[in-house]
Amino acid sequence: MKLSPEQLAAFDRDGYLFFPGLFSSEETKRLNEAVPELYGRREAFNVREKGSEAVRTNFAAHLYSEPFARLARHPRMVEPVRQLLGEALYMHQFKINGKMAFEGDVWQWHQDYGTWKNDDLMPTERAMNVAIFLDDVTPFNGPLMFIPGSHKRGVVDAKHDVSTTSYPLWTVDNALIAQLVERAGGKHGGIVSPLGPAGSMILFHSCLVHASGSNLSPWNRVSVYLSLCAVSNHIRRFKRPEYIAHRDFTPIDCLPDDCLLRDCAVDLPWKDGMPPSALETSIDEARKAA
Amino acid sequence: MKLSPEQLAAFDRDGYLFFPGLFSSEETKRLNEAVPELYGRREAFNVREKGSEAVRTNFAAHLYSEPFARLARHPRMVEPVRQLLGEALYMHQFKINGKMAFEGDVWQWHQDYGTWKNDDLMPTERAMNVAIFLDDVTPFNGPLMFIPGSHKRGVVDAKHDVSTTSYPLWTVDNALIAQLVERAGGKHGGIVSPLGPAGSMILFHSCLVHASGSNLSPWNRVSVYLSLCAVSNHIRRFKRPEYIAHRDFTPIDCLPDDCLLRDCAVDLPWKDGMPPSALETSIDEARKAA
Repeated sequence: MKLSPEQLAAFDRDGYLFFPGLFSSEETKRLNEAVPELYGRREAFNVREKGSEAVRTNFAAHLYSEPFARLARHPRMVEPVRQLLGEALYMHQFKINGKMAFEGDVWQWHQDYGTWKNDDLMPTERAMNVAIFLDDVTPFNGPLMFIPGSHKRGVVDAKHDVSTTSYPLWTVDNALIAQLVERAGGKHGGIVSPLGPAGSMILFHSCLVHASGSNLSPWNRVSVYLSLCAVSNHIRRFKRPEYIAHRDFTPIDCLPDDCLLRDCAVDLPWKDGMPPSALETSIDEARKAA
Repeated sequence: MKLSPEQLAAFDRDGYLFFPGLFSSEETKRLNEAVPELYGRREAFNVREKGSEAVRTNFAAHLYSEPFARLARHPRMVEPVRQLLGEALYMHQFKINGKMAFEGDVWQWHQDYGTWKNDDLMPTERAMNVAIFLDDVTPFNGPLMFIPGSHKRGVVDAKHDVSTTSYPLWTVDNALIAQLVERAGGKHGGIVSPLGPAGSMILFHSCLVHASGSNLSPWNRVSVYLSLCAVSNHIRRFKRPEYIAHRDFTPIDCLPDDCLLRDCAVDLPWKDGMPPSALETSIDEARKAA
């Protein structure tokens, strides 16, 4: 899978590329079927919605779940990102976001690279967000919203919101959002939502400003969000636990294209539980040293 | 304005009728411009969002604001409802819902007649909801969601939710919502959102199950929601304050069709403030008598 010059130009202009139905329903099914057991675990890597048992986000499943370990090495996902970033990649973050039927809460407007820079000391924005739909995404189950072209602004001011939802986020000021949306076309294209069947994929720039609404529908909107970082751009600080911001900078080797449908051997280093070190942070170390 | 046999059949089948752009932009502008001053008042009739200064809903503006007093007697709104209910009408409830940019919170799945029956002892469902858009409604500013045909189930079970948002609501159980959506076509039409420009109008059955999501966009989605009740079907109990559930059952006389654009005289009984009686309820009276 090689991106065309038109696709490269569209990515540069809009900050994202959408691939509807890139994975087959059989491939998506294998992934989706593994989710309930993962969400059922009582572990730090499962963050639940405020005042609810529904999982908001699950971290690092590629280290303890076979189907997701395969997805993390899938050529349809890794190769276009390698082409865009022009370098070997490692997995910086791996999430399965719930946005569950009736329960899924909002994600406020934010950029991902802002967090990676502020918290993880990732040197530049040379990392890519990938969203893979495990459920159909409709206007009614809280689709992602992008402000096209907003990545061109680089890192914008953000404040750390620890109260709106159950997961802390560096969120962008309303006045700036209004300005970015206006510049992107206002009511005519200033906000877009890629909609499509389970198996669709979006690549989006780590500075693209995005959000998503609540899900009041009876349809889950489970998606894998993963972040591939250029190896030379690896993070410099371990302020967040390892299950959130990974510390293994080994370049990803791709598996064959049909790896989701057959028994490809994959390493599952956390299959018997997270190592205690995965919960430790540089803040703990600083405290110990003091 | 007379509804056609096709429109009558569609209303019976779906539980709603949509009239995009029914009011002109000049008419809508007169209404919308009056909103900030009304929302600015520190009165019981303005209910604000949880943890925010943004107005969630304003009640009874037709009793103290000229433009809205005219809208409450507008033939383009009143006549089709009179045709559908076959009787003279009075104003049971009059709201200007904010759903403000960035701040507008969800309205959970509910039926309006459930509340009118339980709280107000309205004898039958012979009352009509009307929504009039004062802003353009897009997929991004928290549009209304309907489950077509759900009015056919009559009044369904509901529980009184006093915690999710700042306004108490009798909300419908998730399992029943899932069932109603499935019956209405599931992902193919089981939920619909009428979208259109400011000035559009929706008539919807008082038993139609509806909801709306949060508004994370930079665009307000102010709408007038009013409820016209057949005079013979007037409420029998005054458990809720008068500014929420009206007690004046005088039939509405329509003004001329151009009433929003010229100085039609209208009565504004609450222009100098709500009378103390508007805050009193039958619960207070029972307490006094005891």
